[in-house]
Parts: sequence; structure tokens; C-alpha cells
Amino acid sequence: MTPGPSAAPEPPDGVLARAVRILSAFDTRSTALTVSELSRRSGLPLSTTSRMVAELVRHDLLARTDDGRRIRVGVRLWELGSRAAPTRGLREAALPFMEDLHTVVRHHVQLGVLEGHDVLFVERLSARNAVINVTEVAGRLPLHASSSGLVLLAHADTEVQAMVLAGPLRPYTADTITSPDRLRVHLAEIRRTGFVHTPGHIRPAAAGVAVPVRDDRDRVIAALGVVVPNDDTAVRVVPALRAAAQGIQRTMTTPDRA
Amino acid sequence: MTPGPSAAPEPPDGVLARAVRILSAFDTRSTALTVSELSRRSGLPLSTTSRMVAELVRHDLLARTDDGRRIRVGVRLWELGSRAAPTRGLREAALPFMEDLHTVVRHHVQLGVLEGHDVLFVERLSARNAVINVTEVAGRLPLHASSSGLVLLAHADTEVQAMVLAGPLRPYTADTITSPDRLRVHLAEIRRTGFVHTPGHIRPAAAGVAVPVRDDRDRVIAALGVVVPNDDTAVRVVPALRAAAQGIQRTMTTPDRA
Repeated sequence: MTPGPSAAPEPPDGVLARAVRILSAFDTRSTALTVSELSRRSGLPLSTTSRMVAELVRHDLLARTDDGRRIRVGVRLWELGSRAAPTRGLREAALPFMEDLHTVVRHHVQLGVLEGHDVLFVERLSARNAVINVTEVAGRLPLHASSSGLVLLAHADTEVQAMVLAGPLRPYTADTITSPDRLRVHLAEIRRTGFVHTPGHIRPAAAGVAVPVRDDRDRVIAALGVVVPNDDTAVRVVPALRAAAQGIQRTMTTPDRA
Repeated sequence: MTPGPSAAPEPPDGVLARAVRILSAFDTRSTALTVSELSRRSGLPLSTTSRMVAELVRHDLLARTDDGRRIRVGVRLWELGSRAAPTRGLREAALPFMEDLHTVVRHHVQLGVLEGHDVLFVERLSARNAVINVTEVAGRLPLHASSSGLVLLAHADTEVQAMVLAGPLRPYTADTITSPDRLRVHLAEIRRTGFVHTPGHIRPAAAGVAVPVRDDRDRVIAALGVVVPNDDTAVRVVPALRAAAQGIQRTMTTPDRA
């Protein structure tokens, strides 16, 4: 996603392409970067980066940190992306059910959508002192490794499935599914049972459990999942997850909702 | 914010300025617009709008709706704005406390920051069947009218206060504060008592109650508020709100948090 200097592709043509390249350099772990870091991560010359940053700051899409030495995403960019976000209706329908679920499950409750060949998490509720979890709001995970990703992959177009099955299937732990044959069997099982359980697939101490969320035409539009300690109680959450997914579907398809 | 055709200013110079103008045309109520609507709202000629939309779609910042006839915000724009959002740390620290509060208060719990002369809401939890509320995530309200806005205004720079006090102070109901003198007294009261109660200021049936959220240097960085039915029980939530605001401050200033 963020090419280093050796892998730097040709600087893209067009102001918008360059702006997107710079905005893409920020991520959940790198929320404030110097102009040099932005230049290196975006693969744009320092002078171009500096000029683009100045223009992005002028439009409040980026902002300087208090000490003036680093650059961060501007509140305006968050606002533009959030107030009419395509996932907004889904998130608003899901949040009350996610809260109810969270009261019961504690740890982590998360909602993900298929975006490219990843699951993109649009919401997450976490408890203080919850089991370890690598998910973050607006963060991504590969489809084959995460419970939410597997649910989405099981119901994805055959084209997406073929691309993912063609690999590489990166291992996170010894339990991550890395064989295309095993993955194919797993996906069929998910379609049959309506849920997935991924004990230790990403971190040995954690287990994911996820179910599909459907729209009014019964198409799978999201995955609702929990991340809990990796013990034999994990699968007990399946009925509560299913009930919440039903509730979200009903809320989204009730015509008179606000 | 969205000039109509008669008020259309000169089309701005620069690709980025035009892109921002188009992205700003979407709001919480208008999440899908035709190219004509975008042209009208942005004040850009139809041909320019059409060309810009095509380029924004190419970068996934905008997307076409399923029927291809309207344009909506792209998932990529949400992702770029959210994953490194400046309000992310605050939101993540606040959410567990907001959930606990929501379990007690039901109705609406919301977190707002000062942005220009508005309160910008960065998070909201709502119950099904809650009292009416005009707040939305990534939505704005004027500082003088909303409980969260009044808390932020009470602790804002004198420059911001002077601008708001200079008016106009738009009334939402007969109870909205529209007199600069009354507003000034109210702001002093908020600084003295540490909370605000706005019975019927925006909708007759609803009351807002809000408290400041402070950072490690005791600067007010956000307002935590609830919207509940407009009866004499509203102020009873103040101690719970204060405790939650303390918890958020403690979480944000604990050096070893993840």
C-alpha cells in the first residue's frame, strides 16, 4: 500500500492522483508524518509533496500538528468522508445491536464489509482489558485470515474467491488457513452452517466468531463478528450473533425507519 | 455551505478546490446526488462537474449508485478520512465510557468537538425509540443552540466567543438563547457549574445535558452530552456524565494505554 523508496513507482499524473497518494500515506499507526516521510511513503518528489501538502492544508484536508513539524489528516477530510459515508446506514442500523451484543460478550464486537480483497472494518466496540485484537475502525484484514473476512469471502463473487484462492494466503499463526483446498472446504462449511469460528487464526490467544448480515434481498452485505479469548466458550456466542444479524437486517429493511 | 445557482460564486481555481467543492455537496441527508444536482450545489459548470466526478470515481473517492444514475461518496474517502482521523484517539478513549453511560441513560449519548463556529459530532450512540434528536455523526450544530456547543463555547477562545456573540443567534424554539447578554451569562454559569442543561432549546420535547472533556493539560477538547426527554429528570444524569468525562480524561492521559 505504501511503497518505499526502492519500490517507488512513477509519480502519478494529475493533482488528484498525487493528493490521493499523499492521503494514502497515513494509516492507523502513522497519523502524523513529516513532509519527508510523506514524500518517501507516497513516492513523490519532496518539492511536489511539499507543494501538495500546502494545498491540502489550505483546504483543511490535512493539518499541521501543534508543533508545526508534522502533518496529520484534517478534521474536514474525516467530515467529508463520514457524513455521507456509504456504510453509514448499515453502521447506524447495526450499532444498537452491536451495543447489546457487547454488553453480553464484552471483548470486541465488529462490523466489516468487503472492500477489494480485504475486509474493511466500519465499526468496532471494545471493552477495556479485552482480549488482544488487531482490528481497528477503518482498518483492513485479508479475507482468508479473519473470521469476518471468511464470512464475506464465502458469499463473495466467484471472481473474488478465485483471486483469493490463487493466493498467496499469508499465515499469521500456525492455525491460519493457508491451503487453497482447505480454504475451499471451509467456505462451503460457512455457507452451510451460517457462521465461522477461527480459533487462533490471527493471534493464538484470540478466537473470532462471525456471521453474515444480509439486506432486504438476502444478499450478504457485511459480517458481524466478535473476538473473544480462544477457549471452548467462543462458539456459545453464535446464537446471540445470529439474533443481532437478524435485527440489523430487519432494521435496514423496515421501510418506515427514520 | 451549499450555494444555490443564484448565489453561485466564481468556480474556484485548481483541481483540488473543485474536488472539495464537489465532495462538500454531499451531506447526511443527501448521500446520493445526480451530476446536475452536484453541479447546482457546487456552483461548478455541468461539464466541469461531470469531468471532476469521473476523475473522483476513478480514484474511488466517489462511486456510482447501483443504477448508475446517481453519485455517492466512495468507501475509499471514508477510509482515508477515518483511519488516521485526528479525533480517533479521543473517540476510542470515549467510546467505552459512552457505552456505559448509554446503558444507564438510553436515548442519545454524543461526543462533539469545536470546529469553526460549530460543534462537530464525532460519535453518537442512540437507542431504538429514543427521544427525537437532530444530532448525527459528522453532523454539525451551531454553538449557541446545542448543549454540547454551549459547553465548547464557554471554554473557547475569546475570539470565537466574540464572533458567536456578535450573532446572528438563530432560534430553533422559543427556548433557544438568542440574546447575546443572556448567552454571556449562560456561558459564565457553565464555567462555574461545569455543566449545561438546555431544556427544549432545539426541540420542545428534548433536553440536552453536557459537560466538558479535558486533556492532560486540563484544556477542554470535547463536550460529552446526552439528549433525553425534556422533563425534570434530565439534570439527574449530570453526575454520571461527569464521571464518564473524568474516565475519558484519565484514559487519554494514561501513558501506557495501547
